[in-house]
Amino acid sequence: MSYMLINRMTAKPGKRDELIQTLLELSEAFDDNESCELYLVSRDKKDETAIWVQGIWKDIKSLQDARNSESMKVYVQKALPLLDGMHQQTEIEAAGGKHPFNLNE
Amino acid sequence: MSYMLINRMTAKPGKRDELIQTLLELSEAFDDNESCELYLVSRDKKDETAIWVQGIWKDIKSLQDARNSESMKVYVQKALPLLDGMHQQTEIEAAGGKHPFNLNE
Repeated sequence: MSYMLINRMTAKPGKRDELIQTLLELSEAFDDNESCELYLVSRDKKDETAIWVQGIWKDIKSLQDARNSESMKVYVQKALPLLDGMHQQTEIEAAGGKHPFNLNE
Repeated sequence: MSYMLINRMTAKPGKRDELIQTLLELSEAFDDNESCELYLVSRDKKDETAIWVQGIWKDIKSLQDARNSESMKVYVQKALPLLDGMHQQTEIEAAGGKHPFNLNE
């Protein structure tokens, strides 16, 4: 089953741009990973410290494999000091709608 | 500029499936609307009352036009009694990452 996440992260004051840059560099590793259908990094328009990451993976194992790669670990270590507290990670499963994804049930 | 939203709604107890069905029927109107790039309805896996809707529109006017259509109003009236309180609507703007969308800056 497709594995879908909505993440809301909060950056330390003044660190949002640097955190976004780190996440974008991290995401480059997914460009050639067919298991990653979506890794979209966005700024919250109201909260100047908040970042949202919307992710869709072929299955949970694909994400776990990506997280365990050495290149990912480097970026996670870069990102951690920029984060302010825990981030909210919400697991969801698609019900439908208009979308371009190949979601497997 | 692309207009992006992340919505979190909470259904009254036992009403989530009906609310999802209503949102999916509503979304059918977007299938032929090129201004709508994404309208993805999902269930929260932990909170049995929560629904997430991830939306991407060509611009804010496209969403406003859709909201003002008569068919949309019918579905909104169907959905409102199923909702439990206010829903959280977060406006975001894309920074980048891996995604299939045609986001205009």
